[in-house]
Amino acid sequence: MKQGDLNMASKTDQAFLQKQRTGHLATVDGQGRPVVVPFCFVYDGKAFYSPIDEKPKSVSPEKLRRTRNIRANPEVALVIDHYEEDWSRLQFVLIRGRARILHSGKEHARAVALLRKKYLQYRRMRIEDRPMLKIVPWRIFRWKAEK
Amino acid sequence: MKQGDLNMASKTDQAFLQKQRTGHLATVDGQGRPVVVPFCFVYDGKAFYSPIDEKPKSVSPEKLRRTRNIRANPEVALVIDHYEEDWSRLQFVLIRGRARILHSGKEHARAVALLRKKYLQYRRMRIEDRPMLKIVPWRIFRWKAEK
Repeated sequence: MKQGDLNMASKTDQAFLQKQRTGHLATVDGQGRPVVVPFCFVYDGKAFYSPIDEKPKSVSPEKLRRTRNIRANPEVALVIDHYEEDWSRLQFVLIRGRARILHSGKEHARAVALLRKKYLQYRRMRIEDRPMLKIVPWRIFRWKAEK
Repeated sequence: MKQGDLNMASKTDQAFLQKQRTGHLATVDGQGRPVVVPFCFVYDGKAFYSPIDEKPKSVSPEKLRRTRNIRANPEVALVIDHYEEDWSRLQFVLIRGRARILHSGKEHARAVALLRKKYLQYRRMRIEDRPMLKIVPWRIFRWKAEK
């Protein structure tokens, strides 16, 4: 097992984090109980960004709950991992950080552009009108199975 | 979007849950902050089971932390999802439940057998000697993208 505890992601970790298509985001509700959902994101080497869909008709209440949880408690965790049936190749990066919600502005616009570069799917979605989750890590932990 | 809020998983959900190879498990630490890690599991239609590796040499501190967190706060969440680039086919099942740790006995042995049936990998691992995480859902929520 190789592991490391980092403030910043190494170059290798950065490449891994930027490549993965989904992560899993955990928040905590008002009763101190966790919730976790899959999410799409970009990572610019400093922060993670993910658009929030707040339209109740098209989004699950669990995703709305995520926003509510973050407003009440900004502490989040996200994990980005690689699975395959050869368990000697398993790896994950766990990020613990603080989240906040961007509504507009330069940083919001930059995140929209990065998301559209990574995901073709976002090019035909109006994510520029949506709030954007920003997560700044206070800890980045990586784990790799022993070869 | 199709969604449902269930106490028990439907037959379709059960098939989906039993088939997926990994899930993501969120716990809450003593400071009320979430942690999330990927995990392998079996679901017998009532509870989820996952072996815990507690040997500090071969396991990440984050996985050990999971056990410590559960002892302090049994509330957990787990999500089992399907991702593909066609986002009209996305789906996930979010389970919120309570966890406890089994050390031995009939239920432990049954979980070991179920895990070895699902994962060839566990057949050559001594999971019979390891504690077993048992998660009993108090809520099962499923979400599917609109077609």
